[in-house]
Amino acid sequence: MNGQQVPQEKLDYILEAARYAPSSSGLQPYKIFVISDKKKLEVIREFSFNQSQITDCSHLLVWAAWDSYSADRVGDVFLKTSRERGLPDNTYEDYQKMLLGIYEPLGKEWQENRCAKQAYISFGLAIAAAAEQKVDATPMEGFDNVKLDEFLCLNELGLKSVVILPVGYRDEANDWLVNLKKWRTPKEEFLTFVN
Amino acid sequence: MNGQQVPQEKLDYILEAARYAPSSSGLQPYKIFVISDKKKLEVIREFSFNQSQITDCSHLLVWAAWDSYSADRVGDVFLKTSRERGLPDNTYEDYQKMLLGIYEPLGKEWQENRCAKQAYISFGLAIAAAAEQKVDATPMEGFDNVKLDEFLCLNELGLKSVVILPVGYRDEANDWLVNLKKWRTPKEEFLTFVN
Repeated sequence: MNGQQVPQEKLDYILEAARYAPSSSGLQPYKIFVISDKKKLEVIREFSFNQSQITDCSHLLVWAAWDSYSADRVGDVFLKTSRERGLPDNTYEDYQKMLLGIYEPLGKEWQENRCAKQAYISFGLAIAAAAEQKVDATPMEGFDNVKLDEFLCLNELGLKSVVILPVGYRDEANDWLVNLKKWRTPKEEFLTFVN
Repeated sequence: MNGQQVPQEKLDYILEAARYAPSSSGLQPYKIFVISDKKKLEVIREFSFNQSQITDCSHLLVWAAWDSYSADRVGDVFLKTSRERGLPDNTYEDYQKMLLGIYEPLGKEWQENRCAKQAYISFGLAIAAAAEQKVDATPMEGFDNVKLDEFLCLNELGLKSVVILPVGYRDEANDWLVNLKKWRTPKEEFLTFVN
């Protein structure tokens, strides 16, 4: 990327697409951290296989998912949803019990993965929104998530970094990938029509 | 949903958005099954908590992810990518060894989750594409994935159903959700700007 800044209204558009993403039972078990400070980005680059888009981007978006479900977290979402909808506070009480009754026995690792998967839906929507705004985005999983969690103090918040997205503008002249043909699984192999 | 058909060109647009989704190392470790046969949809509805959108949709899209990485699967993608790019067959040999060297010790469950997460990115892009085409889509995780795997014979293909998306048109008059206010985590809680 060439270091050019993404205008605020385009950044907002991408972040709103990410925020409006659907998630299982509407729980949105993740947050997004937005980093633009160059010194902080230099530190993050060090534990991201030294990949240059970390420091050459305009903003780095980090999806941080809940490390687990809990009655507090789920209850907070359902309470706010009820109030927004003008419904009694206990509207989703039975549903909440049912959900936690399913999630809890499945254990923390399952829950962590389930939350992360929801973040990936939001991540997909952000990628689509960036393309729509002609902003370049580089989906990345190649970073040391333990170090990033420490750096952003995510542990104290019960969050875990799952995936990151530098957004900015491509450096056409120096991008080794830009002139390579894009390959995708051919349609006939990717799709199965069950009739 | 009201049973109205999604025109073929809109369906194709959604499926192409899903197919062009980015994935870790470009491996696209998933496929999509498209089901429109009403009798088959009735069976699937039975093990999807009897949710009516399964039979009232136009098409049901099922993301089925690899159950694990393997040298065969990864090698096949890299071989095809090399050939598409006019590069020697062994271009990605070292990279492939490096990747499998990371993935294999992490075990099958980790790999299954990693593949599923990639499918969720594609799922997010399909949801965005459906919205763009004014097609309604209902993201769903509430189904019996073991039964769906059996029904679609996914086990023999080393695939696991991870998430499903009925696409069609909303039944405005009978939709209990359509008039409820949408709630999302407020922006100031969802986003953290690290400056």
